Amino acid sequence: MSNIKPTIPSGTRDFSPDQAKKRNFIFDTLKKIFELHNFLPIETPAMENLNTLLGKYGDEGDKLIYRILNSGDFLKDLPDELWQTKDAKKWTEYLCDKGMRYDLTVPLARYVVMHRNEINFPFKRYQIQPVWRADRPQKGRYREFYQCDVDIIGTDSLLAEIELISLVDEVFENLQLSITTKINNRKILQGIAFWLHLKDNEFINFTTILDKLDKIGLDGVLDLFKNENWDIEKISKLKELIDFCSNNDNWTEKINYLDSIFKNNEIGIAGLNEVKFIFNNLNSIQLQNKQILDITLARGLNYYTGTIFEVVCDEVPIGSICGGGRYDNLTALFGLDNVSGVGISFGAERIYDVMEKINKFPENIINENKVLIINFGENYLSYCLPILSSMRQANIKVDLYPDDAKIKKQFNYANALNYKYVIIVGEDEIANDEVSIKNMISGEQVKISKNNIISYFKI
Amino acid sequence: MSNIKPTIPSGTRDFSPDQAKKRNFIFDTLKKIFELHNFLPIETPAMENLNTLLGKYGDEGDKLIYRILNSGDFLKDLPDELWQTKDAKKWTEYLCDKGMRYDLTVPLARYVVMHRNEINFPFKRYQIQPVWRADRPQKGRYREFYQCDVDIIGTDSLLAEIELISLVDEVFENLQLSITTKINNRKILQGIAFWLHLKDNEFINFTTILDKLDKIGLDGVLDLFKNENWDIEKISKLKELIDFCSNNDNWTEKINYLDSIFKNNEIGIAGLNEVKFIFNNLNSIQLQNKQILDITLARGLNYYTGTIFEVVCDEVPIGSICGGGRYDNLTALFGLDNVSGVGISFGAERIYDVMEKINKFPENIINENKVLIINFGENYLSYCLPILSSMRQANIKVDLYPDDAKIKKQFNYANALNYKYVIIVGEDEIANDEVSIKNMISGEQVKISKNNIISYFKI
Repeated sequence: MSNIKPTIPSGTRDFSPDQAKKRNFIFDTLKKIFELHNFLPIETPAMENLNTLLGKYGDEGDKLIYRILNSGDFLKDLPDELWQTKDAKKWTEYLCDKGMRYDLTVPLARYVVMHRNEINFPFKRYQIQPVWRADRPQKGRYREFYQCDVDIIGTDSLLAEIELISLVDEVFENLQLSITTKINNRKILQGIAFWLHLKDNEFINFTTILDKLDKIGLDGVLDLFKNENWDIEKISKLKELIDFCSNNDNWTEKINYLDSIFKNNEIGIAGLNEVKFIFNNLNSIQLQNKQILDITLARGLNYYTGTIFEVVCDEVPIGSICGGGRYDNLTALFGLDNVSGVGISFGAERIYDVMEKINKFPENIINENKVLIINFGENYLSYCLPILSSMRQANIKVDLYPDDAKIKKQFNYANALNYKYVIIVGEDEIANDEVSIKNMISGEQVKISKNNIISYFKI
Repeated sequence: MSNIKPTIPSGTRDFSPDQAKKRNFIFDTLKKIFELHNFLPIETPAMENLNTLLGKYGDEGDKLIYRILNSGDFLKDLPDELWQTKDAKKWTEYLCDKGMRYDLTVPLARYVVMHRNEINFPFKRYQIQPVWRADRPQKGRYREFYQCDVDIIGTDSLLAEIELISLVDEVFENLQLSITTKINNRKILQGIAFWLHLKDNEFINFTTILDKLDKIGLDGVLDLFKNENWDIEKISKLKELIDFCSNNDNWTEKINYLDSIFKNNEIGIAGLNEVKFIFNNLNSIQLQNKQILDITLARGLNYYTGTIFEVVCDEVPIGSICGGGRYDNLTALFGLDNVSGVGISFGAERIYDVMEKINKFPENIINENKVLIINFGENYLSYCLPILSSMRQANIKVDLYPDDAKIKKQFNYANALNYKYVIIVGEDEIANDEVSIKNMISGEQVKISKNNIISYFKI
């Protein structure tokens, strides 16, 4: 037997019981609301074929995919000419066929294409599973983390967007977090680019810079556009637009402003109509949180083609805790065209950090109504075991301390593990068919008849 | 955009909604009972350092561990002398630092040692996570599958065994599977080996052959012992013992028989006393399923040192669906001695197969009381959306078909996805502040006032 001082890989984590319970609370809440909206669960394997994963996340993404070494003689397929190169990058494809899931979106596209004949579209699916990225670990960034994705595939109806916005609202209402959902549309951004006479190939760069607004402010963004050799007129037009919109909470006024500048701007007008439809119909449902039109919201990912969303927490400025949008061609990656979808992803890790920071986890996640029966030794077992068993039949969370250790040790254990009650059975109790119950929080102790235990805890 | 016909790695699976729901039912039931017994959840990373994993599962096991290729220039640490060998086996340790979790037991031992200062012993933990093995895929054997483990670490009290036996009973009662828990003790097997005058180094082989009893029968097992050059007397002694025990359901008679042959047999007598304690105290609790003493139960794993268990389904002869035992030195692998533990692992995949085969999944897992609101177009949204929203506030699983597709298509969708009700809102309904509700199973259709919808579904 070796004697290694054990560690875990950098960027990964163990979750101890209190953390695991809090994480489960978040996952369970998400699931509950997803299922209330009739989303269906799916699961995909942790390992995907590398040809499913590669080329979907850009060159940087490809580098961050964990590769699984082929089993057995993994060198056998390496071409002779590569032996001389010692070039790890070129070797990889011969050594590895499989990689670890990098997100849940590409596996979803792959799943939809593979299972298209058994799926009833529109396909409302949710998926909560870990993903892995060979990123440099840093605060809040891990190499293994969970994604919680909800998508509606196979419809271009904007009611799908409304469905996701109300889902977001209910999730955070249930988590007791006050949030704001920022809504925009890639077509509005295209309309703005058209209005500014940007060339098609400047669009991605335009959205990438705009996306930095939260981090570097308007002046910072405008400076970056200056560096791109934008003329003064363009910059002042954009500044005026952004100024107007950021000083205005009223979505209709923003839409009117955009309407007034989007002349002969087909794509821009299409985007405005979509946003109008969404906000108008949101009026018909009772939402607890704010939705705002944020025309500067860009979202990094270029596969979005319509509505985009991002959710921020009103109380903790931690960045986006949820985001998504509409994509028109996701499954085309795998040969299935014309399948529009819209999806949103909840950032469970950040939601956890926010809830921890402002103390939003319900008290009873850790302090459940748990009961511990104190163990006074073998002679008491035939009295205590039936009590244990009948309490469990009544769904009371109870266990018996396994050793007849010193009573102080057993009470310390009950305290440390947040047991709310302990049951004490000594000779007196047995003689009178009773038990003593101590409330570990109030310190109060009562003696009750053995027959009344269930009703005592059930009240 | 490439156009690959997508596949998934051999031995892995996608879980479609109906399968995922049934799997979740099993996991949720396990969790519910684990928590009723005050077991605490932990999670460990999918990737562990290879030095944590290697050498723990035997040479065969080591070969089945998936290795993760190091990121970046994974060839840089390869010693010059190895370049010539092209020996994949020798290369691996320089190319890979991490491997994928092979079971939950070694990560538990690693966890307990790393976190020993924050754990309150006895540590009752459960863990439900996937593991990966580079095994040859075949029917019922996968490369990714879930393990569901429960362990009590840090006590040698036999009450821990009783706790697990009653946990097993409640789990299968909740899954509505009738099962038998076979119980034995490695010390009894050692006692039998002593009685047969086997040498110490013959013990492992003895248990390995005995373990095949279920598969090849008593004659087959005795033949294997003949091949080991056992003399006639030994074989007939063993045959007589096994015959007596397998024709006898009464644990006390088996114990008495063993008592009579275990003269001056310290280890055997210790095993008998443990088993007696367990069966005597099981009498004090109400269990729904059978427990039997099976003195031929051996369990393959040699780290067991005391009680061993195995659970079989009474209705489907699929082999063991749950198994475990006591180990006295698990954490010693990582330098922490004298920590006794006992654990049990539920085979979720086999439990799934059994429940599917004999139709034990509750009907309402798939056929929930889901409601679909039929979409008749934009004009009806301001009437339907508030209904949708208020039904969800009342926790009714409802959604609105996103497109105003042909009504037949929408009804087909409701049927295919097992919606129990559809809500129909036409001009008449709006004029009278009503909705029509169709029960998709009975075909019955009713018109009710809009204000009575919640109470209609809540009854």
